[in-house]
Amino acid sequence: MTRVGVVGATGYAGADLARILHGHPGVELSVITSRQYAGVPLSRIYPSFEGVIDRVCEAFSVDSICEKADLIFTALPHKVPMDIVPRLVERGKRVVDLSADFRFREVDRYEAAYQPHTARTLSEKAVYGLCEVYADAIRSAGVIGNPGCYPTSVLLPLIPLMRAGLLKRSSVICDSKSGVSGAGRSLSIGSLYCEVSESFRAYKVAEHRHNPEMNEVLSRECGQPVAITFVPHLLPMSRGMLTTTYAELTGPADADAIRSCLTGFYAGRPFVRICSENRLPDTRNVRGTNFCDIGFRVDKKNNRLILISAIDNLVKGAAGQAVQNMNLMLGLDETAGLDSVPFPL
Amino acid sequence: MTRVGVVGATGYAGADLARILHGHPGVELSVITSRQYAGVPLSRIYPSFEGVIDRVCEAFSVDSICEKADLIFTALPHKVPMDIVPRLVERGKRVVDLSADFRFREVDRYEAAYQPHTARTLSEKAVYGLCEVYADAIRSAGVIGNPGCYPTSVLLPLIPLMRAGLLKRSSVICDSKSGVSGAGRSLSIGSLYCEVSESFRAYKVAEHRHNPEMNEVLSRECGQPVAITFVPHLLPMSRGMLTTTYAELTGPADADAIRSCLTGFYAGRPFVRICSENRLPDTRNVRGTNFCDIGFRVDKKNNRLILISAIDNLVKGAAGQAVQNMNLMLGLDETAGLDSVPFPL
Amino acid sequence: MTRVGVVGATGYAGADLARILHGHPGVELSVITSRQYAGVPLSRIYPSFEGVIDRVCEAFSVDSICEKADLIFTALPHKVPMDIVPRLVERGKRVVDLSADFRFREVDRYEAAYQPHTARTLSEKAVYGLCEVYADAIRSAGVIGNPGCYPTSVLLPLIPLMRAGLLKRSSVICDSKSGVSGAGRSLSIGSLYCEVSESFRAYKVAEHRHNPEMNEVLSRECGQPVAITFVPHLLPMSRGMLTTTYAELTGPADADAIRSCLTGFYAGRPFVRICSENRLPDTRNVRGTNFCDIGFRVDKKNNRLILISAIDNLVKGAAGQAVQNMNLMLGLDETAGLDSVPFPL
Amino acid sequence: MTRVGVVGATGYAGADLARILHGHPGVELSVITSRQYAGVPLSRIYPSFEGVIDRVCEAFSVDSICEKADLIFTALPHKVPMDIVPRLVERGKRVVDLSADFRFREVDRYEAAYQPHTARTLSEKAVYGLCEVYADAIRSAGVIGNPGCYPTSVLLPLIPLMRAGLLKRSSVICDSKSGVSGAGRSLSIGSLYCEVSESFRAYKVAEHRHNPEMNEVLSRECGQPVAITFVPHLLPMSRGMLTTTYAELTGPADADAIRSCLTGFYAGRPFVRICSENRLPDTRNVRGTNFCDIGFRVDKKNNRLILISAIDNLVKGAAGQAVQNMNLMLGLDETAGLDSVPFPL
Repeated sequence: MTRVGVVGATGYAGADLARILHGHPGVELSVITSRQYAGVPLSRIYPSFEGVIDRVCEAFSVDSICEKADLIFTALPHKVPMDIVPRLVERGKRVVDLSADFRFREVDRYEAAYQPHTARTLSEKAVYGLCEVYADAIRSAGVIGNPGCYPTSVLLPLIPLMRAGLLKRSSVICDSKSGVSGAGRSLSIGSLYCEVSESFRAYKVAEHRHNPEMNEVLSRECGQPVAITFVPHLLPMSRGMLTTTYAELTGPADADAIRSCLTGFYAGRPFVRICSENRLPDTRNVRGTNFCDIGFRVDKKNNRLILISAIDNLVKGAAGQAVQNMNLMLGLDETAGLDSVPFPL
Repeated sequence: MTRVGVVGATGYAGADLARILHGHPGVELSVITSRQYAGVPLSRIYPSFEGVIDRVCEAFSVDSICEKADLIFTALPHKVPMDIVPRLVERGKRVVDLSADFRFREVDRYEAAYQPHTARTLSEKAVYGLCEVYADAIRSAGVIGNPGCYPTSVLLPLIPLMRAGLLKRSSVICDSKSGVSGAGRSLSIGSLYCEVSESFRAYKVAEHRHNPEMNEVLSRECGQPVAITFVPHLLPMSRGMLTTTYAELTGPADADAIRSCLTGFYAGRPFVRICSENRLPDTRNVRGTNFCDIGFRVDKKNNRLILISAIDNLVKGAAGQAVQNMNLMLGLDETAGLDSVPFPL
Repeated sequence: MTRVGVVGATGYAGADLARILHGHPGVELSVITSRQYAGVPLSRIYPSFEGVIDRVCEAFSVDSICEKADLIFTALPHKVPMDIVPRLVERGKRVVDLSADFRFREVDRYEAAYQPHTARTLSEKAVYGLCEVYADAIRSAGVIGNPGCYPTSVLLPLIPLMRAGLLKRSSVICDSKSGVSGAGRSLSIGSLYCEVSESFRAYKVAEHRHNPEMNEVLSRECGQPVAITFVPHLLPMSRGMLTTTYAELTGPADADAIRSCLTGFYAGRPFVRICSENRLPDTRNVRGTNFCDIGFRVDKKNNRLILISAIDNLVKGAAGQAVQNMNLMLGLDETAGLDSVPFPL
Repeated sequence: MTRVGVVGATGYAGADLARILHGHPGVELSVITSRQYAGVPLSRIYPSFEGVIDRVCEAFSVDSICEKADLIFTALPHKVPMDIVPRLVERGKRVVDLSADFRFREVDRYEAAYQPHTARTLSEKAVYGLCEVYADAIRSAGVIGNPGCYPTSVLLPLIPLMRAGLLKRSSVICDSKSGVSGAGRSLSIGSLYCEVSESFRAYKVAEHRHNPEMNEVLSRECGQPVAITFVPHLLPMSRGMLTTTYAELTGPADADAIRSCLTGFYAGRPFVRICSENRLPDTRNVRGTNFCDIGFRVDKKNNRLILISAIDNLVKGAAGQAVQNMNLMLGLDETAGLDSVPFPL
């Protein structure tokens, strides 16, 4: 059984990775690391794990982790993985990185949005881990740049329709809303309960760093530069992300054509659910799952398409998709470890 | 002191009206009515009022209310006021109606969105109570159609810029998010705590009945037909509404021009706050107040303006604006009864 | 594989039963019924199930369900099961009833708290399904009265200590707090989001119908009448229940003796976790799980023990314990279907 | 008009003080200070204040504040006021201190619970600012130790009944539940939204530092040592505190005697509401107000009284009671600045 490790297991995404991997039938979670909590059992930090995942966090060391694991997840703040991942790759390890460091093929975009990149070549060879779209490349990848949560919710509904030429490239506007867990477990006034409750606000309007990530992927898909308008908002909830996308149709409004484009593209893909006509996505319907629910309506008067997509930002938007990538890389069933029955509430 | 009455005081908007009017220094709340709770003290239904507003709800009767009140608020479901309001007007009363029944000058629009109108003439003469824009007409109005919550949050940021010709009429998209109190106190599965918590979803996409209301006002403002794309969403919070509006600029992106258009239009208007550059609206900053906070950013790459506006849907979006209308009608200070200091959290 | 049915699958407890049974490796969920939603797929009511549990709800009929299922869960309002369960038993079916109808051996207590009982004999023979305490009787039971959520959280910490004679019988006070899902999915003003949010209150103080249920069990355990003081409260959350129990110690305060009594009693029982000294139970640590977490502190000055127990009211307090009962009845692993890894948040 | 200052205006209690004092008709808020945010407008930190309280926070200096204010509120972490307050008093200022530093007459209790006290004499002369009980002493006090939030909710229901000898001194158990704002605005993992949401837990069981404060007051009231059992819990809400108190009755259960003791004691006191028989306190009914709602039930079987009291921990539990103390000290109407109409939701 493949042994897997999680570097940075005590953040929210890392802990959710530990949850999924511990229950995964096809791999063995053999090592977890933490800078801040080395020597502490994970269940001390997340007591829901008590008696279930009592494994102790280790300090990170390349030697130690390479000895204990065959495939490694890095769930670390941006900038740290570009230093660590090349050393793991040198030792023959395959890596799924959850930061932004390996999401860009055009490293200049990364550098404009983040900081200088010290592992350009590796970044150029890494594969963008949007599983439903790039499964073939993922299967043989050495390094996966696991997509950001916002890009996942934006790209899954858009790519099939953009590929099909149904939308005007320059008309795309994405209004996204995310639960607070997206900000992670680090201490900030803006993440305090009393600041989030009964609060809803936009932030980093048209300047969020996930925007260039979306632009790169869509530009590659279209073969021409695409720059969408992207506005993220913060929801008073823990887990959940919903994106409402607006785009002009290139042809006459035809709901059937749109439906058949989406259902065709995602036929047989277990984690994308195209909502039937009488339903629209809701974050609670995907909470704790790896699903992306997609629905749409046509605004006929304005010949605009309105796409709505919902994910759990920590699962399909982070840890779940990371495991889905691993499943593809290891030739396992794509749903392994990700098929628990959703909660009704 | 003017005596005022509230017809329908036990819904959320009616109760908030009672709260504001009870504390208003320039009027006397002299009668409240309720179909369902006739004979019951308002403080039985809303125990926060115990010892403060213990007034008993009466059954509605035209005679009784006309005897007891000079100006009347009707906070009733759509369709009921079109029957009641004309009878109050006949008796010489001035009315602020919180339903949709008197918001439309073009009654055909109303009938297309709601149902046949039985008081067309009165509706055509009523005044749309968007206080910051139509104060002059409001002062002398007999019947006010108090604006919907969504239209208030949509129109306040848009009207100054549309009047100034800064935005392309056909490009306007409004992505709105509302707290649950907007659905009122009536029983519905969708308003249960367990269904709302950790839930976020769009509803009535491009077919909400507030959309024609916005279209009528904007068309009148522009002198040409305007049909915006409008998508409402439901937030897991009680009070609060935030609208993110996207529109293409007619000229080159010029943040200063937009700022000066907005600040100029709202100079001296006590309830609209144009956010300084380093701030964006947040529903919690207007909670329990009659403020509308407006902020914006320019997406230069796409020459798009992004407007963000926040209100408390029950105050500026309903009861507070209704009282503001009353203040204008009675020649009182516009802020009377509406100037309590906001809560910091 | 044993075929199981759920009568009343569309309430919150019924839906959580469907969730657990659908993912259960040892049984087949073969039929679900609903009065209100007969003919409707369960995934229409709980869209998180879409593509996962699309089974259609049937109208209830004894013949039909007896044909399709070997063991039946009844998740119905009190009073209905006393009519239905005997007819299922007559047909040779084993039943786990989630209502109060079969929780009492002393039917007079039931009748004092609820209504006349029309299946007294069957009730007297039924087994109280508190799995950690009555496992032996459960294994061979024909009808299980699945414990109430409050009694589960009250009895698990108390029974070992009462049996050991460590607590004064007459001194027990239980202050319980429950999430809103305990009120079910039925429409009531008190369950609306706007009424629950930022609300916390006691209800049915010292007169809740779960109190006689606790009293009956504790009296039987002690061989003498016990009547505890029980006060339930409503928490602004969906799932979760925490009970703080106060009791005088019969001997000198000895934390070690208490710890060893509890850990001894629950040694090897997979779903009770006795918290280590540096931890106390929290509802979020058991959310979505079948765990009961128990912690305690001694108030030496007053020679009082303070016990704290946390469960998910829908899982260990309802559907999960029901499945645990089934596992015991069928000779399956007690944790089958109940061992998914808890969420860290 | 009396000029008042707030030292430490940017914490939650300090900000709520600023809110109340800014709207107070009888005093002028003339200076606010902040260590962390000196030079910053209060409305930058709490944007709800924008355009309302734009006053800039100053660095604290004894000279400056004594020049600008006649009465001073200190809203600082424990230990800081014992250094500052004596210097203000020397300059002839009257002080309402919101920390624990001046709540104890028996300074040894303070030192056992907190740390060595460097202003023992002043502490011994300070007045405990529980307004409904100690109004006479408060009127002429130089320094007020403003009660803790938990003690306020515990003492108001208990003192009248203890004075009347209706309760057994040794039998009192208080189970308290507080909203998160009680933890203040400082950064701690436990105050993050994702840690608080769907969480409910006890903390500092039988060892919270408000316990000795309650014990001192009750011992003084009873003329004999009293040590109650006190367990605080954390609620997933911002503002609100509810205490459920259990005590044995000295005589036969007589609900009328209890009611008349409470209503007699609080007759004419504007901020204590004794709930009528059909109502029990709820945190939402006192949210944003200075009310303390008190209700009760008798558990006849056990001859126990169950008292329930609800306050807003930031208002009656902190800033509101501080202003009420000021009103008494200055001979103003006790309700001045505290009489805004409560929100219905």
